[in-house]
Amino acid sequence: MVPSEIETAMQSMMFTFHKYAGDKSYMTKDDLRMFMEAEFPDFLKNQNDPLAVDKIMKDLDQCRDGHVSFHSYFSLIAGLTIACNDYYCKNMKGKK
Amino acid sequence: MVPSEIETAMQSMMFTFHKYAGDKSYMTKDDLRMFMEAEFPDFLKNQNDPLAVDKIMKDLDQCRDGHVSFHSYFSLIAGLTIACNDYYCKNMKGKK
Repeated sequence: MVPSEIETAMQSMMFTFHKYAGDKSYMTKDDLRMFMEAEFPDFLKNQNDPLAVDKIMKDLDQCRDGHVSFHSYFSLIAGLTIACNDYYCKNMKGKK
Repeated sequence: MVPSEIETAMQSMMFTFHKYAGDKSYMTKDDLRMFMEAEFPDFLKNQNDPLAVDKIMKDLDQCRDGHVSFHSYFSLIAGLTIACNDYYCKNMKGKK
C-alpha cells in the first residue's frame, strides 16, 4: 500500500526526530541544536540571535529535565507550520 | 535553496489542507470527509465506524460553526503522528 502524501509527511517528521534523538526517546539541547541547524538553517539565520536555540529549548523543556519529548518537538513543528500558513494565507493564497 | 526534509513535510501538510479547503481558510465536514477518505483510507477502514468522520468533526469543530481551521487540522495530524510514534517506540525502535 503506497502511503498518501500526508502519511509520508508524518513519517518524515517521526523519523527526523529519531534521527537526532538516536536510541533515546527524547532530544537533548545538543540534539535540538543539531536538528535546528540542519533542518531550519534559514530560520536560525533570520533570528540573528546566538541564544535562539537556548530560548526554544526553554520553551520546549516544560519539565526542566533537559529533555525534548516527541510531543514537545511536534508542538515546535506545529508552531512553525501555523506561522507559515498564516503568512501564506495573508500574502500568497488567491483571494476569493 | 533546497528545503530540508522537515520543511518539505511541513509544506505538504500545508498544501494538503488548502487542497481540500479550496479558496476558503477552513474545511467543512464534507472537505474533512474527502480529506480523510483520500489521505487516511486505512485509518477509516480500521475504525469500522460509519460515524468516524462525524466524531472527528465534533472533536475538531470547537467553535461549533462547522469549520475546521488550520489549527484544528494540525491538532488532528499531531494526534495521529503522536499515536504512530508511541507505537513505533514501543514495538519497533531498537531497545538501548
